[in-house]
Amino acid sequence: MVTPLMFLQLCVLSIVLPTTSSAFILSDGIFEGREDDLFAEILRDEAVSRLDQLGKVSDADGHLERTFMSPASVRAANLIRAWMEDAGLTTWVDYMGNVHGRVEGLNASAEALLIGSHLDTVVDAGIFDGSLGIISAISALKVLKSNGTLTNLIRPVEVIAFSDEEGVRFQSTFLGSAAVAGILPVSALQISDKRGVTVQDALKENSIAITEESLFQLKYDPQSVWGYIEVHIEQGPVLEWVGFPLGVVKGIAGQTRLKVTVRGSQGHAGTVPMSLRQDPMAASAELIMLLESLCKNPKDFLSYDGQCNDSTVESLSNSLVCTVGEISTWPSASNVIPGQVTFTVDLRAMDNMGREAVIYELSNRMYEICERRSVSCIIERKHDANAVICDSELTSELKFAANAALKRITGEIQDEVPVLMSGAGHDAMAMSHLTKVGMLFVRCRGGVSHSPAEHVLDDDVWAAGLSILAFLETHM
Amino acid sequence: MVTPLMFLQLCVLSIVLPTTSSAFILSDGIFEGREDDLFAEILRDEAVSRLDQLGKVSDADGHLERTFMSPASVRAANLIRAWMEDAGLTTWVDYMGNVHGRVEGLNASAEALLIGSHLDTVVDAGIFDGSLGIISAISALKVLKSNGTLTNLIRPVEVIAFSDEEGVRFQSTFLGSAAVAGILPVSALQISDKRGVTVQDALKENSIAITEESLFQLKYDPQSVWGYIEVHIEQGPVLEWVGFPLGVVKGIAGQTRLKVTVRGSQGHAGTVPMSLRQDPMAASAELIMLLESLCKNPKDFLSYDGQCNDSTVESLSNSLVCTVGEISTWPSASNVIPGQVTFTVDLRAMDNMGREAVIYELSNRMYEICERRSVSCIIERKHDANAVICDSELTSELKFAANAALKRITGEIQDEVPVLMSGAGHDAMAMSHLTKVGMLFVRCRGGVSHSPAEHVLDDDVWAAGLSILAFLETHM
Repeated sequence: MVTPLMFLQLCVLSIVLPTTSSAFILSDGIFEGREDDLFAEILRDEAVSRLDQLGKVSDADGHLERTFMSPASVRAANLIRAWMEDAGLTTWVDYMGNVHGRVEGLNASAEALLIGSHLDTVVDAGIFDGSLGIISAISALKVLKSNGTLTNLIRPVEVIAFSDEEGVRFQSTFLGSAAVAGILPVSALQISDKRGVTVQDALKENSIAITEESLFQLKYDPQSVWGYIEVHIEQGPVLEWVGFPLGVVKGIAGQTRLKVTVRGSQGHAGTVPMSLRQDPMAASAELIMLLESLCKNPKDFLSYDGQCNDSTVESLSNSLVCTVGEISTWPSASNVIPGQVTFTVDLRAMDNMGREAVIYELSNRMYEICERRSVSCIIERKHDANAVICDSELTSELKFAANAALKRITGEIQDEVPVLMSGAGHDAMAMSHLTKVGMLFVRCRGGVSHSPAEHVLDDDVWAAGLSILAFLETHM
Repeated sequence: MVTPLMFLQLCVLSIVLPTTSSAFILSDGIFEGREDDLFAEILRDEAVSRLDQLGKVSDADGHLERTFMSPASVRAANLIRAWMEDAGLTTWVDYMGNVHGRVEGLNASAEALLIGSHLDTVVDAGIFDGSLGIISAISALKVLKSNGTLTNLIRPVEVIAFSDEEGVRFQSTFLGSAAVAGILPVSALQISDKRGVTVQDALKENSIAITEESLFQLKYDPQSVWGYIEVHIEQGPVLEWVGFPLGVVKGIAGQTRLKVTVRGSQGHAGTVPMSLRQDPMAASAELIMLLESLCKNPKDFLSYDGQCNDSTVESLSNSLVCTVGEISTWPSASNVIPGQVTFTVDLRAMDNMGREAVIYELSNRMYEICERRSVSCIIERKHDANAVICDSELTSELKFAANAALKRITGEIQDEVPVLMSGAGHDAMAMSHLTKVGMLFVRCRGGVSHSPAEHVLDDDVWAAGLSILAFLETHM
């Protein structure tokens, strides 16, 4: 059993608890400090207003939904581009629909600092996931523009709003950042959505004529890039528990997505005795129960052989999470025993070897269950991403910037911001193939994300923007 | 554990096994007997050709799908109406989209014999379910017309092709026959399909302006009806096992359809530790596993109190079947812990009190599981139909007719056709509220139905038509 305390022990790698857990929220929700240094109008009020505005750009009535190259995504891209220009950046949209805004600074040929996050959302999303990272970067650069210091940057700074991180439409994450990092295979252009529209078609419908050649051209020259940073909501409960608005990220969990297809004998719900059924729905229920048990208690399932040592199993016990988010039956009628059931498995862990051991054990046990039930079972690996360790130098700089921002806010020396691991995947995972990466997490209410209940305090939005500003000031 | 043998013991209530299990299939698949008495051209060849033709009338490419008042259903109704007229019947379509074909015989004011089945299908259906009963009745009447004996019938005979038995579109079975039987509530007109179209709208789209008043007028006067018979494929494996092309039905199992909605805490698949989740998908898997266990071994779950005696539990052990045919998650993305999961439960048993006891026990245990998992659980009863016992007189007449038909086919006295119970619901259930009912089952390959693999031998189609003909001849 993973207790909240154990989870905290894992996630919070370096933290000195503040004297009270609400150290950074004062009675009126207003930070202390000199207002003229803190740019509240741009970094808090305008940023919050823009988050609200972007959160209304949706393909659905009644909930937020913005998938790769959908009409709402295109409208969101245009809005972000306008805000980038408002901050003094030169903008363009690339062949994968990513929106770029760049300022060259003192030396256009120096290695560039990239700051990014994603503009797409899940279905029924919150308004901060992805958008916060884009808007806080733009806001920080806007402060430099309003100060007249944008040209003082010693290296080019480029904000990128990536077109696809959630992977909702094509079931394949990081289309945008993987293309920039040069790790997106050409075959990705031919992946189809549920309506049979390919990635290439989706771009073409929006007058972007991507070819194999232009996909290759999207890759940035590693020599031209200094590093990549990303601000993102935590999407977990740790920062709220420890009472900090910000945390720096030491690493991102590895992830595997599986598609499980179970085929049985389709038939009439009233006439086939229970004992003679080969029911893929009952089988799938047993498979999903197995998945839950294994992920709750990996120690009970994994053998301690050469592949899986004590520390791996310990790491899994603290970090492994597994989710079945989608399931469907065929032919999907209440009075028909399904002929087929398909469901997804999302599996994440900090330890790559441990994740492999879990998938191996899970698959073997799933096949055993299917064999016992006389149904067939196909387990496909749809997506794999190894855990990513953030660059220690960049992480130190981000930590310094976050501490500096919090010091400016409170006017006094505070305990250092915590260092966390991320259970969620981020564009930084793809970008780590191109350059060193660093991430800053922002507290969100109850740790809730991928839900309309997702919420970040206005003052925490402000703290995030001020941290990027502090980070940028070290590049002057 | 219900063994196939136990199932047979229950289902086959009155049977003397033939000397070989293939008693009614000769080497060339041709029945013995005098060809001129057997009307093979109409009752076999044309009927089989019409089944094939009707099986191609579908709303979908690649599979058979014909739901209430869909474009394909309207085309099918027109085709059936033309075949009724070809058989010398006067035809009309009523306010619920049912197609009627009637011949008055010697006495238009005598109580009428109704013969019916349904023209709608499940999704990815076979071509015999429903259609066989309509086509074999029309074919038998066409033989009388070609013989010039149609006017010799001592009572009116009316074939009805019901517009909705499967209930795929509106999740509510028997819209057609329930209207004719006068048991369809007015509220049924306002049931919506998945796109929000009501039953009334669906009829209106096809120029049928049904009102509350015209719905009441659909009800037949019980005084004007003598009885109802229905020919249907067995949709189970019993007739094939015992080697008979036909069987008569003693009764139809009662049925309950539930809709179960499980609500939990929606969140990011990567950041919520397993121990802190309120995951409605994992909960649903446990509920479905419970359902399967309970329906396989009701003895282990039910208490022997006043409501549930030995014979009830024994009946349940032999007849109870439970199916989850549809399931969906919200928001249905692989990287989101669902906030809600909905699934259907189809539950059938011969014993009405036993079925109630199962639903009571199932609901209690479901609520317990949901409470333990801190998710909410709503169980709605969407449909209930008590078991129906067929009229003994009608059943005897049908048995006599089937025996006579098989005697004509083989030219010798055979063992009597078996008497079965039906696990599947049929329009006869609704019609039993109007008049006495009887049913004749036709063997289907492997007992498979609600599947494109559904198959009836050409010669068995012939035997079915010849049985109705023999039945009609007793009404001259």
